[in-house]
Amino acid sequence: MIPRIVVVGGGFAGLEVAKALGGAEIGVTIIDRHNHHLFQPLLYQVATAALSAPDIAEPIRKILGRYPSVQVLFGNVAKIDTEARILVLADGTTVPYDLLVLATGSQPFYFSQESWARVCPGLKSIEDARTIRSRLLLSFEHAERTTDPVEQSRLMTIAIIGGGPTGVELAGSIAELSRHTLARDFRNIRPEKTKIILVEAGNRLLAGFAPELSEYARLRLESLGVDVALDSRVEAIEAQKITVGGKVIPVALTLWAAGVAASPLAAQLGVGLDRGGRVKVGSDLQVMGRSDIFALGDVALFLDENGQPLPGLAQVAKQQGEHLGKALARRTDTGEDLPAFVFRNRGNTAIVGRHAAVFESGRLKLKGWFAWSAWAIIHVYLLVGFQHRVQVSIQWLWRYLTYERGARLIAEERAEPGPPPSPAAEQPAPREALPPDADALPGIARAR
Amino acid sequence: MIPRIVVVGGGFAGLEVAKALGGAEIGVTIIDRHNHHLFQPLLYQVATAALSAPDIAEPIRKILGRYPSVQVLFGNVAKIDTEARILVLADGTTVPYDLLVLATGSQPFYFSQESWARVCPGLKSIEDARTIRSRLLLSFEHAERTTDPVEQSRLMTIAIIGGGPTGVELAGSIAELSRHTLARDFRNIRPEKTKIILVEAGNRLLAGFAPELSEYARLRLESLGVDVALDSRVEAIEAQKITVGGKVIPVALTLWAAGVAASPLAAQLGVGLDRGGRVKVGSDLQVMGRSDIFALGDVALFLDENGQPLPGLAQVAKQQGEHLGKALARRTDTGEDLPAFVFRNRGNTAIVGRHAAVFESGRLKLKGWFAWSAWAIIHVYLLVGFQHRVQVSIQWLWRYLTYERGARLIAEERAEPGPPPSPAAEQPAPREALPPDADALPGIARAR
Repeated sequence: MIPRIVVVGGGFAGLEVAKALGGAEIGVTIIDRHNHHLFQPLLYQVATAALSAPDIAEPIRKILGRYPSVQVLFGNVAKIDTEARILVLADGTTVPYDLLVLATGSQPFYFSQESWARVCPGLKSIEDARTIRSRLLLSFEHAERTTDPVEQSRLMTIAIIGGGPTGVELAGSIAELSRHTLARDFRNIRPEKTKIILVEAGNRLLAGFAPELSEYARLRLESLGVDVALDSRVEAIEAQKITVGGKVIPVALTLWAAGVAASPLAAQLGVGLDRGGRVKVGSDLQVMGRSDIFALGDVALFLDENGQPLPGLAQVAKQQGEHLGKALARRTDTGEDLPAFVFRNRGNTAIVGRHAAVFESGRLKLKGWFAWSAWAIIHVYLLVGFQHRVQVSIQWLWRYLTYERGARLIAEERAEPGPPPSPAAEQPAPREALPPDADALPGIARAR
Repeated sequence: MIPRIVVVGGGFAGLEVAKALGGAEIGVTIIDRHNHHLFQPLLYQVATAALSAPDIAEPIRKILGRYPSVQVLFGNVAKIDTEARILVLADGTTVPYDLLVLATGSQPFYFSQESWARVCPGLKSIEDARTIRSRLLLSFEHAERTTDPVEQSRLMTIAIIGGGPTGVELAGSIAELSRHTLARDFRNIRPEKTKIILVEAGNRLLAGFAPELSEYARLRLESLGVDVALDSRVEAIEAQKITVGGKVIPVALTLWAAGVAASPLAAQLGVGLDRGGRVKVGSDLQVMGRSDIFALGDVALFLDENGQPLPGLAQVAKQQGEHLGKALARRTDTGEDLPAFVFRNRGNTAIVGRHAAVFESGRLKLKGWFAWSAWAIIHVYLLVGFQHRVQVSIQWLWRYLTYERGARLIAEERAEPGPPPSPAAEQPAPREALPPDADALPGIARAR
């Protein structure tokens, strides 16, 4: 009998599994709680108003539309019953499976400081990026308005926690936004004076790269006016201030780039998890002790030939997805052993700013303009969907020439009035959703 | 002494006033509750996933950045004190003026049926468009999921109230979205079977156009599969059904295109308003009985030489803004009379669908492919900002060739966690903002 294969997660890993099975005309159901696949590596550009959300998000249905054997299910998996082999969605729908592929990725992890999560957005979803973009632009608007110099300098201080690729990319991009894009647009403040603090607990940035590249990134960021604070641990994060090494720093906004944990669904498999909440998988990506469940991408702990865990990178997820999809497509009987996955490192990049990137692949180490161009070409090429490639490349060309940014939209932070067209949610999200004095907040206020 | 000129509203009218004064190096403050100028005529394309929000929104600061004498103030005017000549913003900031230009536009008007507003979004802001886009796409997702055929046909029924240009454009665009863009992407439903009902109280669509163009629009919409219900009055609008002529129709979503009223700020001028809430202005755009206040665009009632009120069109607003801005720039003494405004009709267009538009200018009446191309060229040209012109034209070319739509994003309807960086809103928008069973709603649910 043909096993019912269910893939949870439409990220880089899950999508590749579905494509490979769809290509082989094998029936598969892919479930995601968003309707779109997100090109995560460029999410920081949406957060900093360089790209608009749809540029890096593609409907999963559209991507898989050409594979008739693939069912796309837009839903949120609430429960995994590994005994009955049934997934229960948040709205009660049940989805039985014979083989489960868990590819639900990761999410920001605040070292169990849940109060931090409320005030310090991470960067994992489109909503995260829009929240960051709105708050970032809003803080400049408030700075322009205030007459109190102390409050003004707070409103022009942005802190970023974590000096990995995401932290470095956010810091560099915000620096360019303030130094160039916004420079001419204000009258009472000088956006180029924005204080950007990059807080890293370790003794160098980009710990995953060679020391000389870390050093290059630090120097470039500092030349962009970023305060790089190494060996600095954040002790507290509040709405308008952070505490670093005992020192309290008033800030407009704090962004979280210090760590992620595997999706909480992993905990429902009833197997042991590592400190990052990841599921240990064997060389064939099968979950230890669960012959009917596979895990891949950020949610999986895969040890390479040296016993080192593979990093949570798009290329790892993509390769694991391709590998598993093809292996399952080839396998004729569910008992059969699957080939071992071997990761081929295509090299890592981090963008520091315009003309400034680092690239490392084995012994090959690049930095500066060349690494930046290589990165831009590769990423434009990798973007899902031709239309996006065209648009994104034009936007980049345009921004390259002008420093302009096209997506400087401040969204209204509010619950939408009225019920979505779902029997599951009859009552409207109440207008009281807004803070009582929300009307005092431009961008939230409605004359309606 | 130089009068302090304050413009409220960064739409087509207000923006032109600020540009003209800025060009003449005259000091002016422009206030808007959004940070962006919105290219309203294309908003329906954001609502139907054809364009992304930033494509048609440009930061007001960016547009006016090159005029050093122009101050852009991002805020929400709560009160106009016409005696003291002071504006009070929602956060308490006061802005004194010598001359006030009110250009706050209009908003959907539900004939005082406030319960309708909650369930039946209009199309005035980016947030409106995103709400419509999300609910529209969400309804197809729910239809794909349900096994109940009755519920499924409800979820595939969209009602649009109002057969003016907005209603016609929404109906045509939703028809093409369902007939072409989504056709291949679902497995359990056939999106091309979507029922689109356009409800118009009058005896023809596009009442502002010549009867033959109205007839053309009706025939084209019907050929796209739209049910055009003329002489039909909507009696009730609820979350999942509407009542038209005594008949109850179950629907997934109802959109409001039946009427707008002037911005409520008009009421604060203490002068009489017409039925649409508009302020009567003289030939020089001065508010009757208020020599220090001007009103223009949708918020103003301007009677042409035949005593007919000018329609609420972008070109009227734009021309009035240019006229007033230049007149104020030329005037040397505030006592001086201002020249009379004369509207030059550049013609009206409405888009029915691909290759199908109507255009009317005086005796000239065009329909079909030619009118459509003319419209496309004109609108791409008119779009504020070069980058947008490039992108939008590429998107249109691409969609023209493929029927693809790039902006099929379902946003999560939720209050953002955490406080925006404003002293005015210390407390976070509570997570409880979501409906209790929000987790049952894909697109809202978060595994977090």
